[in-house]
Amino acid sequence: MDKPIRLAVLGSTGSIGRQTLDVVREQPERLKVVALAARSNAALLEAQVREFAPEVACLSSQPHWKMPDSRTRCWGDNAALTELATYPSVDIVVAATSGSDGFRPLLAAIGARKAIALANKEALVMAGALVRRAADQAGVQLRPVDSEHSALWQCLQGEPPDAVSTLILTASGGPFREWSREQLDTATPAQALRHPVWAMGNKITIDSATLMNKGLEVIEAHWLFGVPYDHIEVTIHPQGAIHSLVKFRDGSMKAQLGTPDMRTPIRYALSWPDRWPSALPPLDLQHPGAFNFYPPDVDRFPCLGFAQWAGREGGTYPTALCAADEVAVAAFLAGRLSWSGLSRVVQSVLDRHHNVADPALDDVLEADRDSRRVAAELVEQLTLEKVH
Amino acid sequence: MDKPIRLAVLGSTGSIGRQTLDVVREQPERLKVVALAARSNAALLEAQVREFAPEVACLSSQPHWKMPDSRTRCWGDNAALTELATYPSVDIVVAATSGSDGFRPLLAAIGARKAIALANKEALVMAGALVRRAADQAGVQLRPVDSEHSALWQCLQGEPPDAVSTLILTASGGPFREWSREQLDTATPAQALRHPVWAMGNKITIDSATLMNKGLEVIEAHWLFGVPYDHIEVTIHPQGAIHSLVKFRDGSMKAQLGTPDMRTPIRYALSWPDRWPSALPPLDLQHPGAFNFYPPDVDRFPCLGFAQWAGREGGTYPTALCAADEVAVAAFLAGRLSWSGLSRVVQSVLDRHHNVADPALDDVLEADRDSRRVAAELVEQLTLEKVH
Repeated sequence: MDKPIRLAVLGSTGSIGRQTLDVVREQPERLKVVALAARSNAALLEAQVREFAPEVACLSSQPHWKMPDSRTRCWGDNAALTELATYPSVDIVVAATSGSDGFRPLLAAIGARKAIALANKEALVMAGALVRRAADQAGVQLRPVDSEHSALWQCLQGEPPDAVSTLILTASGGPFREWSREQLDTATPAQALRHPVWAMGNKITIDSATLMNKGLEVIEAHWLFGVPYDHIEVTIHPQGAIHSLVKFRDGSMKAQLGTPDMRTPIRYALSWPDRWPSALPPLDLQHPGAFNFYPPDVDRFPCLGFAQWAGREGGTYPTALCAADEVAVAAFLAGRLSWSGLSRVVQSVLDRHHNVADPALDDVLEADRDSRRVAAELVEQLTLEKVH
Repeated sequence: MDKPIRLAVLGSTGSIGRQTLDVVREQPERLKVVALAARSNAALLEAQVREFAPEVACLSSQPHWKMPDSRTRCWGDNAALTELATYPSVDIVVAATSGSDGFRPLLAAIGARKAIALANKEALVMAGALVRRAADQAGVQLRPVDSEHSALWQCLQGEPPDAVSTLILTASGGPFREWSREQLDTATPAQALRHPVWAMGNKITIDSATLMNKGLEVIEAHWLFGVPYDHIEVTIHPQGAIHSLVKFRDGSMKAQLGTPDMRTPIRYALSWPDRWPSALPPLDLQHPGAFNFYPPDVDRFPCLGFAQWAGREGGTYPTALCAADEVAVAAFLAGRLSWSGLSRVVQSVLDRHHNVADPALDDVLEADRDSRRVAAELVEQLTLEKVH
């Protein structure tokens, strides 16, 4: 057997980070963790360090973090994330840090010509052109970890790029797929958190309920695969068995299917172009027995339309979209914003945004800060309106 | 643009041959017909010769066939098929001759290192080991033309061979999918010829109704892709949208989908690894709106089980199966055999067959002749039983 592939897992205590370590447990001869980084979950990071004995680890929010009883070299600041992302012996950086904290380490990892398993959706949504350009210049491969993008990537294997006609992202439709507009006005966080197919973090589960997540994925797909927005479609597929499809110019289509388990796309991002055996039960086609497909309803789920619009407009619009959504979702989860208020905040932030075409990283970070501030003010206003 | 790909179409007046020429009409700059061969349809072959002006043509059943007004060199005997299959300037031989007539030309084309677009299912069913060995020895690619095998082939692009876990062939289930055993006893040729998805020749339409066709395809898939029979499954998928699937060892699956149109797999066999644009309307996922999957019922459709059994046993059993089926289907279509008689004839021929392990071509041809004779006798007996 070949030497194990050496990983840096940035965001190791989050959902994707933990499942990445599950894959490492499953493939101990193929994978070796050499670097682990988390933001604030010290207890879990320390347990991970004890289990995987990486060479380096970082708890970015705690400057004085140390593990005196460990041989692992420990860092406790944000800059150390970049050290880990460029650590010489690392082969693949799993970029699973959420939010804009992960931008600089990601760009550093690309600059150091690491292969990237990219789970930080925000990086491609907020700064897609920047990340894509950096990757192209360095000749670095961005390997998708999102299940839909992994599905597209799998369908694209062995296919000439100019043969691709359309990318079709599937969406479960979320818990409110069949709710009327009137019912949606009463939707609560608890209801929105009951995702029919995937068990995920709270933010992404709400984004799935609004279809904003699918909109962000459209932008992500655009930058991952270089396909124009007019050739990226969304279809509602409630069973979640088909994770996405590619239509080719000869009329043929390919789909990737599987049980909804993030370890499959994570494993593929690490094993590519190979596939490693897994003990997960494969999808049984005969159960649930029917696959359905519906067009998405952008009237009931306007966030999908906002994201598609922001993607086409480009510049810092997607940054504003992403920032506004994060603030609005947090306010919705805290009970400070209604379901319809959530999309109103996103729309208003886009309306007020001063777009910067072809932004540098600082422009992106500024658009992020500004949009968060505007979104927070809008949440405040809507809350006051509700109270009075 | 590159030089056009030069084709020999063996069986040009049959269903696959005619659709191959449709693809040539669609891609006049990419494809050039240099050789055409048919068995007996002189009128159509002559029209094709006038349209495509090949360098050579052959009407194999008419020794004195000539087209004096044409520049095309004309042959009128069976041996000429081999001349055409090995014609020096040919790049791809489309092997669409039905039955065992096509074996020698196919093996000759392989020996001459032509790429093969293989539509002659019998070749791989009756003489799979021989054809496979010849292709491996010559380093020749066998490109599938059957829609299911094309689907598998498309799903296998860019995938390491040892990553394949299971091939899953889909079957529409035919017109009798929901018929009870009692209803099946009354099935008529006219009812059996009403295929729900594909418009095809009579023999293959009846084979689809009995599921024999799917059994033959299991054997074909075994030899095309080198996958053991235990790892080839059949699932009933009435909508015919998914043409087949591959399950990989990591639990992921890939499917190929499309409108049921044979020109798509034919075009792919010619364009591979590229895909050429097509004006055919692509599949609309939202219509019919549901994909279903059921396990096949081998009790009601025993021919599927016979074929799987014959494939596993190997040797000349698949030859006997194929020969018996051809005779039985012809008798069923002529009204001389009932629906249940059809499978009884196949079963009895297999029961009486003296298997030759690792057969040479002559063994295969002898098993074919013998099995046809035995099948004809059995049809005769069953007809007499019915009369008396």
